[in-house]
Amino acid sequence: MLKDKRQEVCQLIEKGREEMVETLRELVQIPTLTGQEAEGQKHLQSLYSRLGLKVISLEADRDKVCRHPAFVDSGWDFQGRPNIIGILEGEPEAKSLILNGHMDVVSPEPATEWDFSPWEGRVVGDRLYGRGACDMKAGLVASYFALKALLQAGLKPRGTVMLQSVIEEEVLGGGGTLACLLEGYTADGLVIPEPNMKIILAHPGVFLFRVRVLGRSAHAGLAHTGVNAIGKMNQVYQALVALDEKRAEEKHHPLLEVASSGRSCHLNIGTYRAGDWISTVAGWAEIECRMSYLPGEDAEEVKRQVQQTVDEVAQHDEWLRQHPPQITWLETRADPWEQDPAHPFVTTFRESAAKVDASALPLAGATWGMDTRLAPHFNMPAISFGPDGANIHGVNEYVDLASVINCTKILASFIMDWCGVA
Amino acid sequence: MLKDKRQEVCQLIEKGREEMVETLRELVQIPTLTGQEAEGQKHLQSLYSRLGLKVISLEADRDKVCRHPAFVDSGWDFQGRPNIIGILEGEPEAKSLILNGHMDVVSPEPATEWDFSPWEGRVVGDRLYGRGACDMKAGLVASYFALKALLQAGLKPRGTVMLQSVIEEEVLGGGGTLACLLEGYTADGLVIPEPNMKIILAHPGVFLFRVRVLGRSAHAGLAHTGVNAIGKMNQVYQALVALDEKRAEEKHHPLLEVASSGRSCHLNIGTYRAGDWISTVAGWAEIECRMSYLPGEDAEEVKRQVQQTVDEVAQHDEWLRQHPPQITWLETRADPWEQDPAHPFVTTFRESAAKVDASALPLAGATWGMDTRLAPHFNMPAISFGPDGANIHGVNEYVDLASVINCTKILASFIMDWCGVA
Repeated sequence: MLKDKRQEVCQLIEKGREEMVETLRELVQIPTLTGQEAEGQKHLQSLYSRLGLKVISLEADRDKVCRHPAFVDSGWDFQGRPNIIGILEGEPEAKSLILNGHMDVVSPEPATEWDFSPWEGRVVGDRLYGRGACDMKAGLVASYFALKALLQAGLKPRGTVMLQSVIEEEVLGGGGTLACLLEGYTADGLVIPEPNMKIILAHPGVFLFRVRVLGRSAHAGLAHTGVNAIGKMNQVYQALVALDEKRAEEKHHPLLEVASSGRSCHLNIGTYRAGDWISTVAGWAEIECRMSYLPGEDAEEVKRQVQQTVDEVAQHDEWLRQHPPQITWLETRADPWEQDPAHPFVTTFRESAAKVDASALPLAGATWGMDTRLAPHFNMPAISFGPDGANIHGVNEYVDLASVINCTKILASFIMDWCGVA
Repeated sequence: MLKDKRQEVCQLIEKGREEMVETLRELVQIPTLTGQEAEGQKHLQSLYSRLGLKVISLEADRDKVCRHPAFVDSGWDFQGRPNIIGILEGEPEAKSLILNGHMDVVSPEPATEWDFSPWEGRVVGDRLYGRGACDMKAGLVASYFALKALLQAGLKPRGTVMLQSVIEEEVLGGGGTLACLLEGYTADGLVIPEPNMKIILAHPGVFLFRVRVLGRSAHAGLAHTGVNAIGKMNQVYQALVALDEKRAEEKHHPLLEVASSGRSCHLNIGTYRAGDWISTVAGWAEIECRMSYLPGEDAEEVKRQVQQTVDEVAQHDEWLRQHPPQITWLETRADPWEQDPAHPFVTTFRESAAKVDASALPLAGATWGMDTRLAPHFNMPAISFGPDGANIHGVNEYVDLASVINCTKILASFIMDWCGVA
């Protein structure tokens, strides 16, 4: 009978495809860059209300969250940027579940390079294009429609199901998931449908840093008397690229490299700024970098590798020896995360998935930090599993719509098994 | 008798040193970045008034200046940014003279690297430090005190003397000197006391350009699937540095290299911007460059050298071959300028200088564009000659105060000879 019900739920999800795509498109059309999540959250709030959930709008309390060891200050004020929690209250003796997703998205620049506007939500064939389409508005939508389909089928989860739409995940900020969990919105397990359709059980640690190099500015008409900081910084850039390649070759984690074609860790140089004026020799240069490292690696040791790399560049350049590059370790960071695959939360999830999807879902890791890393602080098992897509954080990000349907089915199936249904 | 008078004027200038330094310091303390010249101009206006000059506050008329072939659009509105002209009317049959200087200064960044605040005007020994101290508020002050000393000595110039304090010279903008000249504020000769104490009779042509390179952005956790635009741009940077060195070796102009220890032309890479987000592979990179070329060189041919250099980089890189760097030639430019050294304006100036300064002033060129280049459009001879100093456009810019005194004497002496005195 539960098998028939499961099939009915899947059919309802398939029938609801058009509504789901439309809901996703509406969300993509709201440009919810980190810090500007409010309008998107209002939209989610009204969806949650329509489903009959108890809806809580929760602005983070800075005094509370800032004392937690995993807190990262995004620099943004929390006011007017609530997390939205939709709760379907269940029986206390049944297992509860959080389906969590972040509303914020990263910049779509260079926006002119996109085939369609990043805020249009254009559907082409089985893909929906847009910034945040895959990362991770599709995940928010899948969670919502999974619960909706169950209710439509007359299945009331026995344990509490909580939908959380959170802010500032993209900057690892402490005003989102951390605030929800600290306010007591926890459960017996956490699923975050970040991309993609693998059962993700680990991610690397991440820290951010800035390197600043000074040159000697001079009028462009006397440029030969100055020292261009760009030329000096380019030496640092080259050395950091070499460090990245060396680490990529040496450092391997069986789960992480599944997700990333053999790559377990990355050093990314994301921004470069130098000079203030076209007719002046650039007197300073600054790059911002993101370093990821394996679960089990010591962050401090990895930082030493960075420091040593930069120091070595300086030792081989007379100017830099006199004017050593300055490294600033930014506050933003994420600890590595690993989930025991033997936990019933994971084994149940795999079984639930198998019931509605014939393909064997691989275990994997992500190569980016996720809010799943917060779960161990609250003694919760966690999984990330979400729709497939491509060009995350890049030009022409899209989500595969068939996978959104699939993911929704699997989430619904898992709710049935984990929380039970009455 | 004129010899005694000349000596008296020089003594008055020396005695006025303290007032001159104080006036310069007050001007340096007003941060008149290009676009923000208004407060500095108000200050000059009140000085000119106190000297009894007829003062004109002249905002450029865009419709008028934009039609001139030498017009460059600075992008700033002219409203509220007047040029200030102080006129001491003379006899029409005597020779008239303009002493012109620009009020605007370039950014002092990195300001934290200065020994003193760039807006303090700190005097240490015989130097006054500050952004614009040498380039060219000292020149504005020298012109003013030259005329003031003559009047104090009871010497009324026979020809008209015009002091012009103009805006947006640092961006070669058309709302400054060009606007004054087009409104009819011309004369029989133009002296601009830009640094430094050489009789400057030539400068290179200058054009500006931007190079934009695209990469392929990607999430930092999948950085190996992206193409970092920074790495690609650094190849362009290296090639442009090589072009600069090649041109520096091959291109020589006898006057320009006097001013610049053997260097007649420069390619400066002044700014570098790439990427929007630390956790995304930089999908774009942009540099802004200033190229100078010799009088006699063809600007279009020099642009072809730049284009060819960038094209060659692209040919040797698979990604860049598919995604060629884009060069944008900016509107801002300056034509090369040369003044015939045999012109009576120049020979008279040298003689006037010799009467008050024993050192033989060398003929030279500048390696930056100046408003002197506009003089030929109005059939005026022109000279640049101003106080000495160092670190123009750089950290710890300063002016040598003894040279300000010297320059003031020479300007006063030249007014006596060129305009005559009654």
